[in-house]
Amino acid sequence: MTESNIGTNIITQIGLVVKDIEKSIEAYSSILGLPKPQVILTDGYEQAQTVYRGKPSYARAKLAFFDMGQVQIELIEPVGEPSTWKEALDAKGEGVHHIAFQVKGTDQVVAYLESKGVPLVQQGRYTGGMYSYLDATSQLGLVLELLENFE
Amino acid sequence: MTESNIGTNIITQIGLVVKDIEKSIEAYSSILGLPKPQVILTDGYEQAQTVYRGKPSYARAKLAFFDMGQVQIELIEPVGEPSTWKEALDAKGEGVHHIAFQVKGTDQVVAYLESKGVPLVQQGRYTGGMYSYLDATSQLGLVLELLENFE
Repeated sequence: MTESNIGTNIITQIGLVVKDIEKSIEAYSSILGLPKPQVILTDGYEQAQTVYRGKPSYARAKLAFFDMGQVQIELIEPVGEPSTWKEALDAKGEGVHHIAFQVKGTDQVVAYLESKGVPLVQQGRYTGGMYSYLDATSQLGLVLELLENFE
Repeated sequence: MTESNIGTNIITQIGLVVKDIEKSIEAYSSILGLPKPQVILTDGYEQAQTVYRGKPSYARAKLAFFDMGQVQIELIEPVGEPSTWKEALDAKGEGVHHIAFQVKGTDQVVAYLESKGVPLVQQGRYTGGMYSYLDATSQLGLVLELLENFE
């Protein structure tokens, strides 16, 4: 990354929160003619070490990914709470929650974005990497997700 | 296109409705480190021939585009009404309104999507092409935009 931005302008995912992931998968597959992806349940707290607004959270999510060229559509059904996913679904209903970027040096990028008034709201791990959600709703109209895959 | 889908799975734009496009451009440029794009006012009715829910509309919009790899972020500030842009801004506030695809044979793709329960809500022209918005909010959580550039 440079001093002046998040180090990339390539959007890799568009994430949507949904109420019923099986129903949404069916709709995306049927309407857009896409192969049906597997549903993945995010790791439990032991592995994911989810932190939501500064506190540990046992919230999880069911995920499904559709390849749409450079970007993936990520469907997210919240499981338990609290999480940024459940918060968004409760506040605005189904729809786009975030756009994601692949980054290097999460801590520095988070610090940069926080210096711009975009707070970290949720962070966790997945096999081989970590994710961070920063809430830019008031400035950009959506949440930013940083994905960092470890070497 | 094939019989079974819209003929492409490549998302080319993510469109967001915003209240004040200059303010949003400033935020996107500042937070994501992007060059500031020009603001474009869509054509008036004579050129755009905008149709909203089956009736002519004099609604326009201010647009700005950020290149984010394969996809563009399109900021849209509604000017006048009625339009799908104003409707979305009034209903849910600032945020993602649509994802766009480049298509061939708009009429056939629209007919296909309508057969899947996704209604055409707005259509219009721009120099060299035409756009169509189909409201998949209840099925996919967003609006689909079809862009067709004429040969």
